[in-house]
Amino acid sequence: MIYLLDLFGVMVFAVTGSLAAGRKHLDLFGVVVLALATALGGGTLRDLILGAHPIFWVADPFYLAVAGSAALFIFMAPKRPSISSSLLQSADGVGLAVFTVIGCQRAMDLGAPSSICMIMGVMTGVVGGMIRDMLTNEIPLILRKEIYATASLAGAIIYVIFARHLHMENLAALLAISFTLTLRLAAIRWQLSLPAFHNDEG
Amino acid sequence: MIYLLDLFGVMVFAVTGSLAAGRKHLDLFGVVVLALATALGGGTLRDLILGAHPIFWVADPFYLAVAGSAALFIFMAPKRPSISSSLLQSADGVGLAVFTVIGCQRAMDLGAPSSICMIMGVMTGVVGGMIRDMLTNEIPLILRKEIYATASLAGAIIYVIFARHLHMENLAALLAISFTLTLRLAAIRWQLSLPAFHNDEG
Amino acid sequence: MIYLLDLFGVMVFAVTGSLAAGRKHLDLFGVVVLALATALGGGTLRDLILGAHPIFWVADPFYLAVAGSAALFIFMAPKRPSISSSLLQSADGVGLAVFTVIGCQRAMDLGAPSSICMIMGVMTGVVGGMIRDMLTNEIPLILRKEIYATASLAGAIIYVIFARHLHMENLAALLAISFTLTLRLAAIRWQLSLPAFHNDEG
Repeated sequence: MIYLLDLFGVMVFAVTGSLAAGRKHLDLFGVVVLALATALGGGTLRDLILGAHPIFWVADPFYLAVAGSAALFIFMAPKRPSISSSLLQSADGVGLAVFTVIGCQRAMDLGAPSSICMIMGVMTGVVGGMIRDMLTNEIPLILRKEIYATASLAGAIIYVIFARHLHMENLAALLAISFTLTLRLAAIRWQLSLPAFHNDEG
Repeated sequence: MIYLLDLFGVMVFAVTGSLAAGRKHLDLFGVVVLALATALGGGTLRDLILGAHPIFWVADPFYLAVAGSAALFIFMAPKRPSISSSLLQSADGVGLAVFTVIGCQRAMDLGAPSSICMIMGVMTGVVGGMIRDMLTNEIPLILRKEIYATASLAGAIIYVIFARHLHMENLAALLAISFTLTLRLAAIRWQLSLPAFHNDEG
Repeated sequence: MIYLLDLFGVMVFAVTGSLAAGRKHLDLFGVVVLALATALGGGTLRDLILGAHPIFWVADPFYLAVAGSAALFIFMAPKRPSISSSLLQSADGVGLAVFTVIGCQRAMDLGAPSSICMIMGVMTGVVGGMIRDMLTNEIPLILRKEIYATASLAGAIIYVIFARHLHMENLAALLAISFTLTLRLAAIRWQLSLPAFHNDEG
């Protein structure tokens, strides 16, 4: 179940990477690279930092196939797929929620301290999008946007508390995914934001 | 033989990094950093992802010396060396072809699945240039340019098929390098491109 | 003693990351991410390349706490803290000097060759600032600025010579930190620069 949601997350993130590539008029290879970096970048950095070899997509190249196929599909679609922006954002929220939980799980399986597990959850959820934005020469959107990483962090905290300290792994995953997704959807719906930082010294 | 070509590739990539630094008017240190990142970045990421420690240039610091010397030479040349642009692009094509084969070899030696070997070949060939472009605040050129990574991918596929499945390692290296280089030179000569992606929703 | 200086360096680098985030009007999460990336990025890349697991801040999450607290403090300060720019630059010089020595030490403890130890010292000192600048969409300042990485490199050479070849570790640390800091402060005071590179072919 988690595995299926994970593949869904990979697919959705690959789609957002492909669409970003489209906005910058990249060629076919650029689209595939951005899709892979967006979909797999967060988990790759997590596994590198945890020293968890083999990296998840080296162990199971099916992830590569899913992300690559999504990119090709977007690239070759005769018309731009008429995915509404809000549908895409909601799907992206599902990916964010699932990736967060998977990142926490991976770190917990390796016996990392709780604070590290939470950081790894957030890293898995948000780093892919940050790489995507750096490659397309933008200041990463998630550093500026409505509650995004904050939703991921909330989910990570919930997951680690319920799974590690209360020993209810399934409930933890369910609660964390639901809460992250709900918070993210609410942020999209009502454009909730964290306070921004205005430095007058700039 | 492959080792000499590898050093040649490192030198050429260091030169392209130094020239990019020159276009942005970086100082001496900036030139050296860009040269090292361009020449060694792809192989470094490959070794990190494969968990292949020690990283190749930690095991053999001669790579550092070659890349650093190339950067110093370019920086200190009293006149800009009168390297014609097409000569540089051809040399860059040799580096791309050799790095691709070396990346595949390294992954195969570690017993990675074939799809991963191909990815590692392409990563070794192209990531250095991507880091160079990110550091100089450009959208990576290879995400937009004529057939570049595609030539690398073709070489990687040829190499893995011949070396792993037909057990002809030397022939595989020869064929893969020749094909990648030929395809790249043809792309430069006739300005071949992959189709670009125009997303009207942008 | 070195550990306390290390925490001081982490704090100072987190502050420079937070202030950079402020100049780009990032939100709270963006400020924290930039602070963590600036303060911990150099050491993280060093540990990844050396294969030194666990990464230092995974082994000791107190580093995370220090960097995160510094970011929150800067973000929440009712007025922009009236830190004079020259005080901040001097503190940054202390961080640079200490990080350089710690990077060399970590590589020496793992038995790396001397050239690699020096590279790791410089990497620990300067990569955090480079990541900060890439995330805020600037060409990394240290690639252009007055003697910065050069001061780090000088300290790294001094440290490795005294600690490895003359077996005087404490003296080595003292000399290397003093020299790096002095060189950096002199560069700030008299605006010393390395020669810049003007490529007329650009």
